[in-house]
Amino acid sequence: MTYCCGILVKEGLVMIADTRTNAGLDNISTFRKLNIFESRGQYVMMLASAGNLSFTQNVVSLVTEGIENPENQETERLVTMPSIFAAAHLVGRAIRKVREIDGGAFQEANISFLLGGQIAGRRLRLFMIYSAGNFIECTPDAPFLQIGEHKYGKPILDRAVKYDTELYDALKIGLISMDSTMRSNLGVGLPIDIGVLRRDAQALEVNTRIDIGDIYFHDLRDRWSTALKQAHLAIPRPPYGPKV
Amino acid sequence: MTYCCGILVKEGLVMIADTRTNAGLDNISTFRKLNIFESRGQYVMMLASAGNLSFTQNVVSLVTEGIENPENQETERLVTMPSIFAAAHLVGRAIRKVREIDGGAFQEANISFLLGGQIAGRRLRLFMIYSAGNFIECTPDAPFLQIGEHKYGKPILDRAVKYDTELYDALKIGLISMDSTMRSNLGVGLPIDIGVLRRDAQALEVNTRIDIGDIYFHDLRDRWSTALKQAHLAIPRPPYGPKV
Repeated sequence: MTYCCGILVKEGLVMIADTRTNAGLDNISTFRKLNIFESRGQYVMMLASAGNLSFTQNVVSLVTEGIENPENQETERLVTMPSIFAAAHLVGRAIRKVREIDGGAFQEANISFLLGGQIAGRRLRLFMIYSAGNFIECTPDAPFLQIGEHKYGKPILDRAVKYDTELYDALKIGLISMDSTMRSNLGVGLPIDIGVLRRDAQALEVNTRIDIGDIYFHDLRDRWSTALKQAHLAIPRPPYGPKV
Repeated sequence: MTYCCGILVKEGLVMIADTRTNAGLDNISTFRKLNIFESRGQYVMMLASAGNLSFTQNVVSLVTEGIENPENQETERLVTMPSIFAAAHLVGRAIRKVREIDGGAFQEANISFLLGGQIAGRRLRLFMIYSAGNFIECTPDAPFLQIGEHKYGKPILDRAVKYDTELYDALKIGLISMDSTMRSNLGVGLPIDIGVLRRDAQALEVNTRIDIGDIYFHDLRDRWSTALKQAHLAIPRPPYGPKV
């Protein structure tokens, strides 16, 4: 399993991805799922993947090494695309290409990507690219997108993330969402890769990995757990039973 | 969609089910999914269902009206079963029977049931019955079972419900779990049916429906929402960014 989320707020973009992969429950490994492409001052792109690892790695390699654009026979690479929108199209083409190469076995493979970033002079954008190569864009009304095991971590994002949420609050809420997912699904686990890109900065403000020894994340998990406990204890008991 | 959960704690059993069904997004109805069979002093059984409505209604009708036991040719009904374990077997047989009658179209239908209750002189038990007719039992290590859209509401149950949780706290936590699910999936909605059975009581302590005007549930949703907001606001911001 995998859980990745991208949060696009007024101040910028946060992307978070776990690193656990498993082929069956008895074959668990760590693979980076948050791929970062950065040339300071020029562009920052973050590409997170979920689903069959051979498929997603193939897609990432293709967009890194370049694939031919059938319209003009030019080889296009992610980092040479003129906009994030064009880059999302490229990822879509790479997905179709891998499906073509690997054929039948992967017709049913359910993979997905989040692609977020900004190219100098262009807009900061975040897209979710589906298994078929089509994609949707994140907009201010629902300023986040998720791939992989998304349900456990969605309630807190639904409640807490707004477009005007501050950038590091968005990161914090994203980490709480990741914590909720990790607690309920062992297929999602540490370490977690995070990237924070401030709008129009053209350079990552944070590009780091949170591992088991991370003091802040440990503290966040503790505090969240305690706060949830206090929260439900503070709610009065239901009045539906016999009157005491 | 559907969300039902059963919580089996030391003091008793709580069962909660929503009532929303949909055939497509443009055909939404209210159907009771929590079926109660009660004869005060003798037995209480609660049977909640998730999945294809025609299939689950058929199963409920069969166990209510009776089906033949192939081993002894006797017609058995849910309320005449000697134990909840035997009743779970009966529900399993009814599932296989409906699959047999409706044939091909329902081979793939994914349905599930929660059956909880107690018969005088026997143990209070809770079972989850799968699509194939097999079932598992709820035990003190993980004192709840869920069917339907279970992921959104699982984190709070994972964190807050223990076997020694008090009965009405279990109900409260179940309602929070239902609230989380309703917020994230429009396919799960009010009204909610709830049943509370104290161990060895042989009569329901609560058998009621929570609808949109319910003051307690409205207050619970508000308080939970506010508490979650305060909880994440109280957590310090992540230290990963540039030092201010």
